[in-house]
Amino acid sequence: MTQLLRARNQEITPEMRQVADSEGLDAEEIRRLVADGAVVIPKNRLRSFNAVGIGRGLRTKVNANIGTSPRRADVQEELDKLDVAIQAGADAVMDLSTGGDLDSIRKTIIDASPVMVGTVPIYQVASMRKAEFVDIEADEIFEAIEKHASSGVDFVTVHCGVTCNLLPRILDEQERVMGVVSRGGGLLVAWMQKHGKQNPLFEHYDRLLDIALEYDVTLSLGDGLRPGSVLDATDELQMEELYTLGRLARRAYERGVQCMIEGPGHVPLDQIEMNVKLEKRICNGAPFYVLGPLTTDIAPGFDHITGAIGGAVAAGAGVDFLCYVTPAEHLRLPVKADVRMGVIASRIAAHSGDIVKGVKGAIEKDRSMSVARKNLDWESMYELAIDPGCARAFRQDSESYSEEVCTMCGDFCPINISNRLQKEKKETE
Amino acid sequence: MTQLLRARNQEITPEMRQVADSEGLDAEEIRRLVADGAVVIPKNRLRSFNAVGIGRGLRTKVNANIGTSPRRADVQEELDKLDVAIQAGADAVMDLSTGGDLDSIRKTIIDASPVMVGTVPIYQVASMRKAEFVDIEADEIFEAIEKHASSGVDFVTVHCGVTCNLLPRILDEQERVMGVVSRGGGLLVAWMQKHGKQNPLFEHYDRLLDIALEYDVTLSLGDGLRPGSVLDATDELQMEELYTLGRLARRAYERGVQCMIEGPGHVPLDQIEMNVKLEKRICNGAPFYVLGPLTTDIAPGFDHITGAIGGAVAAGAGVDFLCYVTPAEHLRLPVKADVRMGVIASRIAAHSGDIVKGVKGAIEKDRSMSVARKNLDWESMYELAIDPGCARAFRQDSESYSEEVCTMCGDFCPINISNRLQKEKKETE
Repeated sequence: MTQLLRARNQEITPEMRQVADSEGLDAEEIRRLVADGAVVIPKNRLRSFNAVGIGRGLRTKVNANIGTSPRRADVQEELDKLDVAIQAGADAVMDLSTGGDLDSIRKTIIDASPVMVGTVPIYQVASMRKAEFVDIEADEIFEAIEKHASSGVDFVTVHCGVTCNLLPRILDEQERVMGVVSRGGGLLVAWMQKHGKQNPLFEHYDRLLDIALEYDVTLSLGDGLRPGSVLDATDELQMEELYTLGRLARRAYERGVQCMIEGPGHVPLDQIEMNVKLEKRICNGAPFYVLGPLTTDIAPGFDHITGAIGGAVAAGAGVDFLCYVTPAEHLRLPVKADVRMGVIASRIAAHSGDIVKGVKGAIEKDRSMSVARKNLDWESMYELAIDPGCARAFRQDSESYSEEVCTMCGDFCPINISNRLQKEKKETE
Repeated sequence: MTQLLRARNQEITPEMRQVADSEGLDAEEIRRLVADGAVVIPKNRLRSFNAVGIGRGLRTKVNANIGTSPRRADVQEELDKLDVAIQAGADAVMDLSTGGDLDSIRKTIIDASPVMVGTVPIYQVASMRKAEFVDIEADEIFEAIEKHASSGVDFVTVHCGVTCNLLPRILDEQERVMGVVSRGGGLLVAWMQKHGKQNPLFEHYDRLLDIALEYDVTLSLGDGLRPGSVLDATDELQMEELYTLGRLARRAYERGVQCMIEGPGHVPLDQIEMNVKLEKRICNGAPFYVLGPLTTDIAPGFDHITGAIGGAVAAGAGVDFLCYVTPAEHLRLPVKADVRMGVIASRIAAHSGDIVKGVKGAIEKDRSMSVARKNLDWESMYELAIDPGCARAFRQDSESYSEEVCTMCGDFCPINISNRLQKEKKETE
């Protein structure tokens, strides 16, 4: 039985209690949100870790993508990235490996991960068949999904919404600046074009639901047609796919399968809120999981910043789950330092959103930091910082580390001045 | 005669033509915007450089604060920071020096700067008097402003809106979490409290206007009461000061003095647009110059990211000028690497805003980058990147530098796949 089916049966599971505890909310409230499909708790029934919820009213969560590529396939490096991601505060990791012994790498990452693990099973099928990917049988895709589910994966990205009726427009150069920029989407487009058949993940969706039901794997309905340029955002292709995902999300919900929706991509600032509202409307309030979004295309090398801008606005508008973007995006596979920056930037975005969402306890963190600042209590400031080590290192590297004030304002520290005046005023009263 | 007075006299100055050329707009349109006070062209009449406009309809500009502190006063280091800022694309620098020979440092920076230079003259008064700052005469403040203007400063921050009627609330600990966090604001509060007199910059505002008129120095009306915590944003103190600044902006406009308004600070995401609209309404459309804003208080060490989030939303909502925030903010004086990161992050924010503002040519940059991406044309991607060297370095550091694809997707590059399919489709047609 999935968390969704148990919630619908009025059962409060240990996982719902864990989510309630970590969010500071009532367990019955969590049960009701899971029963409504507004919150998912991705946790394979074979796995054991402290469950985390994603969805309405909860803290915005952050995912870090790790994984090998054919040109760089060192499992130890991926385990190191996992550690870095967890230390930086990631709530989830996705193993997107496409190089090396994929079964072994996935198992190693799952065993080592204290947080939920997601995968994109079609990557494995493609990696094994290489250039002959387009020759695979539909069965192979489902076998890979079954394999991932039975090895303990907590959520899988499945690009079910890339349907063959969209092929003419997908392959029309005039339709978009960037065409298809999703790996899974691109592979399925190539497959459909070659075979003249429907996307198997769409056509045999019930088979996918069967697997998800058995292991309580959460479906993350992928956006294979997400915009890869701000000029392509919220276009007809993206919206057609979203309507399909909305219908599939309903079918998952009816069967009792937990489900969330993946979203863009590259989106100008003024279209982000609209995208969130559209997803919530069309997908009946299913949790929304976005990649970025990036608010401009021109900043390769700094896309963690571009992604933080879009992610913050998205989170503030109701997005539930942010997939990080690293400084390496659009340039190469991320290394450890990129993973750390990506997670931190996304956490800043998530928290900026949580403040305006009114997530329980969010603004209190800012209050505590501000009180520490007013007291010039540096040890508390480091401790409350999103990355305590980094905050301390910056100051340690300055001439005023042991002083009350910092090298920015020195003797003219306005906080020091106003504290003194406030104290004097109090004493004369 | 100031740019404003000349614009009002129907004159199109060489500076207006430079602004028109660099923005791709009509010179008469620039003249009209300057005449309306909606655009300022900060350029001291003693200075010679390619003029840049700030305001309605123009590209959002970025300022980098540099300058010594008493604990770190090396003029060569500041010149290096100036170079880094310019190379990274800053449109303006402010010399906020408070340590060393301030007159000499300022002159050196002005002589070396190819962009507009701003200062906060009261810092110099304070630095010279040190702990006895509160004993200065009002005259000294104006003498410092005159000295800065006559040495070629293009714009000055003057905290005219911190008025003595607000003292009881400023000194009430219950009023705010963080109190006063502006250096200039804090110094003036201390002065008013000690002397029981009005802020000289408010009381003798006409004297300030006389100096500004003589040199065509643009006034940047400072927000001495800006919030230093997201919990203090848009509070009564901030708004009282803004109403005062609005009245002073009108008086500047009437006298023919160019003027912009400085803004917060620390502001939650959902209050940023409101703050921009309030400024535009209250200050009659005067250009708005914001510091950040920071959308959370908890990220010291990464406040360039937090500032980029707020800056992007602010720019998109109509802010005209972003003061950068560096990773060193709240911790120490920035060093060169911090300056570079701060400028880049602010430029990403500014451009993200320009896309949605519809600034001429903005989205075309994204289109060019997207076309280069679709063509897997790496040299063009580097060239079009906000920091070409950084973009190249990331990829140079990977195993696929000389290949068509990157190590992220390798053989499964969706762009490659969809390009091939589109080509095949075209050939069969």
